[in-house]
Amino acid sequence: MLGGMQDFELRVPRLIDHAVREHGRREIVTRWADGSEMRTDWAGVGRDARRVARLLEDLGCKPGDRIATLAMNHAHHLATWYGAIGMGGVIHTVNPRLFDDQLVYIANHAEDKVLFYDKAFQPIIDRLRERWTTIEHYIVMDAVRDDREDCFRKLVDARDPDYAWVEGSERDPCMLCYTSGTTGNPKGVLYTHRSTVLHAMAELQPAVFDLSGRSVVLPIVPMFHAAAWGLPFAAAAAGVKLVFSAVNEPAVLCGLMNGERVTHSAGVPTVWLGMFAHIDSTGERPEHLQLVTIGGSAAPRAMIERLMRMGIRVNHAWGMTETSPIGTMGARSYDWDDLTFERQVDQVAMQGRVPFGVELRIVDEEGAELPRDGVATGRLQCRGPWIVKRYFGAEEDAVDADGWFDTGDVAALHPDGTMQITDRAKDVIKSGGEWISSVELENAAVGCEGVAEAAAIGIPHPRWDERPLLLVVRKPGAAVSAADIMAHLAQHVAKWWLPDAIEFVDALPHTATGKLLKTALRERYRDFRLAAA
Amino acid sequence: MLGGMQDFELRVPRLIDHAVREHGRREIVTRWADGSEMRTDWAGVGRDARRVARLLEDLGCKPGDRIATLAMNHAHHLATWYGAIGMGGVIHTVNPRLFDDQLVYIANHAEDKVLFYDKAFQPIIDRLRERWTTIEHYIVMDAVRDDREDCFRKLVDARDPDYAWVEGSERDPCMLCYTSGTTGNPKGVLYTHRSTVLHAMAELQPAVFDLSGRSVVLPIVPMFHAAAWGLPFAAAAAGVKLVFSAVNEPAVLCGLMNGERVTHSAGVPTVWLGMFAHIDSTGERPEHLQLVTIGGSAAPRAMIERLMRMGIRVNHAWGMTETSPIGTMGARSYDWDDLTFERQVDQVAMQGRVPFGVELRIVDEEGAELPRDGVATGRLQCRGPWIVKRYFGAEEDAVDADGWFDTGDVAALHPDGTMQITDRAKDVIKSGGEWISSVELENAAVGCEGVAEAAAIGIPHPRWDERPLLLVVRKPGAAVSAADIMAHLAQHVAKWWLPDAIEFVDALPHTATGKLLKTALRERYRDFRLAAA
Repeated sequence: MLGGMQDFELRVPRLIDHAVREHGRREIVTRWADGSEMRTDWAGVGRDARRVARLLEDLGCKPGDRIATLAMNHAHHLATWYGAIGMGGVIHTVNPRLFDDQLVYIANHAEDKVLFYDKAFQPIIDRLRERWTTIEHYIVMDAVRDDREDCFRKLVDARDPDYAWVEGSERDPCMLCYTSGTTGNPKGVLYTHRSTVLHAMAELQPAVFDLSGRSVVLPIVPMFHAAAWGLPFAAAAAGVKLVFSAVNEPAVLCGLMNGERVTHSAGVPTVWLGMFAHIDSTGERPEHLQLVTIGGSAAPRAMIERLMRMGIRVNHAWGMTETSPIGTMGARSYDWDDLTFERQVDQVAMQGRVPFGVELRIVDEEGAELPRDGVATGRLQCRGPWIVKRYFGAEEDAVDADGWFDTGDVAALHPDGTMQITDRAKDVIKSGGEWISSVELENAAVGCEGVAEAAAIGIPHPRWDERPLLLVVRKPGAAVSAADIMAHLAQHVAKWWLPDAIEFVDALPHTATGKLLKTALRERYRDFRLAAA
Repeated sequence: MLGGMQDFELRVPRLIDHAVREHGRREIVTRWADGSEMRTDWAGVGRDARRVARLLEDLGCKPGDRIATLAMNHAHHLATWYGAIGMGGVIHTVNPRLFDDQLVYIANHAEDKVLFYDKAFQPIIDRLRERWTTIEHYIVMDAVRDDREDCFRKLVDARDPDYAWVEGSERDPCMLCYTSGTTGNPKGVLYTHRSTVLHAMAELQPAVFDLSGRSVVLPIVPMFHAAAWGLPFAAAAAGVKLVFSAVNEPAVLCGLMNGERVTHSAGVPTVWLGMFAHIDSTGERPEHLQLVTIGGSAAPRAMIERLMRMGIRVNHAWGMTETSPIGTMGARSYDWDDLTFERQVDQVAMQGRVPFGVELRIVDEEGAELPRDGVATGRLQCRGPWIVKRYFGAEEDAVDADGWFDTGDVAALHPDGTMQITDRAKDVIKSGGEWISSVELENAAVGCEGVAEAAAIGIPHPRWDERPLLLVVRKPGAAVSAADIMAHLAQHVAKWWLPDAIEFVDALPHTATGKLLKTALRERYRDFRLAAA
């Protein structure tokens, strides 16, 4: 049909171009690990990004090449993202908390060509340099310009910022991030320009991150963790002021929040526990904070409640590396103002709703779709233009014939669209054909006085298939008994959910991203015999 | 490169599917012209839309066919949009305020196959039915189900809502809207699924319409006016409650706003003048209104100030049919809280900034780009994925070699990205948000016996923004009167185009090339007062 609209490829460099052109003077603040501060703005980041692109071309990089970073959050890291993507490359963010073997596997599997890293991670480089087979160039990203040949500022400042971004299709890859699964080798999720731009546009809306040019955002979530939840891209689209901290000490974060008038922050639950401890011990609190987004793992109810009592809106998010990562966001319902505080907390304690773009369903063991009635629980699957289709280098798609990606989570879907995670599929305890949520048992247990941490795993049972074993770490000095915990649990979970045994341990194993390492626990207790069995 | 993300075509039916699935119970309220009320929800609109799609197929419509509407704002109109688009058709919203010749031209040029209309417009149908050469079916959209063969509810209720949307490319057309330009025939802007979905996603952000599932939106802007500024699409993406009124009387609107707890509204300046008069005479005011968007023509400063003093956020928008229509939006700057009230009003009085997606530049008469310094003024051009490229059926693109569309407006661009319209599109008279073509008025006038030459200019009017003043040079010896000219014009232009005053002059000023020198005329009649004003 004759006639139509203009168009452009949804390429990531358009985001930084928009920020430079329309919000060029909006600040980007970095607080480095050594305590020093660096202030630039979107115009400055854009200039550095074009110099990084030129540097990478000078180093022989070609479109499609993977450019790795091993770094905390700062403006040099941000400029490297936009520079690598702008020259047609694929930015590969590596999680420095991974184990050596994983770090070796990941960089070699990705065939990284250049590695930008923070000096703090020099020991990792020194240990692994010989084992990384494809990295040709190492560049140190720290603030200070020095005479090292591999100094970021020295190399970047020497380049002309007059550079034209490499053009291409919106379906070209732009970013690579590996998931540190609990089993097998890490798997790489390869984001495209299109998926990244659509995700960034979706993130601006009030029901997600609620970002505008008035926002001041401190992403505590690291840039190596699911692209800092996409915030560096959404920030450019909205022209927000970004505040980075290369360290995550509560005192530093709280000082930055007040000094820079931070309105939005985002991070995993642990971060907020640290912040509470800081508030309790010093009396200092973040004065300008309006919206806190919590994701990565489920936020405890007490945490949500405390933040809300501080007058802060809490967004409880669910997602994963495979979902870019926004799957659901706990936006307030339309009847929010009519709810009691208790009901409001109940609502935020669930994982919220999908933004336009994401679809969810729950299925049973045979793959049949289950009702969205808030009662049925099943394996959570998702679909949408920023959800993984095939892992990097994989032989097969990670989705089924209808395009559904199985998240490995177990959830209920409520009639109003709210999603509620009840467990990880592999952690669910299958008892007599019914499912017991290990997460709910653990949450109930940590609500008991004297319990610091708890883990529930299924133990083989001749009659019931599996029954729960609860492993508990006591708080220092606490003398809580198994009977105390059982009495507490009895008030919060169904009777048939009560664990068959409670064992006290000194510590529980965790993954690099801080999640309970259930595989190790199941291995350790493989031969555990329940008394009743 | 092996690996990547899922994807889907950015098709409009995904918006309604999202609303049905995630916000199915969120209400859609219609207040009909006869005062009756109809309540449905997104699930209901989705069901009706699928039935409309089936109805259209039953009527022989094929993907690509144009389906016209001549209707005010209501849920049947909304379902018709989604139904026509969902069966692969192109919804063509016709402005019932146009003059007969334009209505004939538009429907025939678009080759509309079906016309859905409100009974209130029956006289138009009766007058023009014989002159419309392609319309095969007429359907009356009013609320009540009756025994007429062409009754919307009767036809729709008879269809099975189990219908699968027609699939296709995101670059397929989905909507057609004609601009009533200043010269020549109206031109059609043909929106694509992609442009519409991207525009809807952009509209949700806080800096634009700030929409979430908590919003209650009453779009006063008619659905035949640049797609009601895209609100029916954005509303589905966010799951807002929509409130429609088929009449725009202030008392009705204010009653609806309070009864339905409307938080967001949008309309041309005239609407708010009417609302002020209502408030002044009755004391009733919209109690829940948080955000008012004003566009279509420039909002007077006093209007902005009064709304702001009522505690309402005012978004001053600029755009046109050719821009979907969001070009800029007067979102608050990051230093808003530090500004005095006067400076805040100054800021809102300008036209604001572009969302990610739109690019602006100003150029001089030779097409050279002018600085973004807030001082230079030039022709405003724009670019982006929801800006027109080629008018429907045109032989040539409406953009230059670099993809820029010339808006015909004159503007300054400030260093912070704020755009300020400094002059109207040259000759256009903006009355109540609609354009009156001065050229057509003049052409009609010179068709009157005894008229040698005529010039139409806009004179400021407190209610309508501008109203036409017609300056006439009589032919030598002719005695034609103002009443004669008015009677003649009444046969050739829409009633609301008729000038408020006619003045006889001895001569009119001209440029060197013989064109009317409107700037000189506007200067000369700067202090002219219309009797009716």
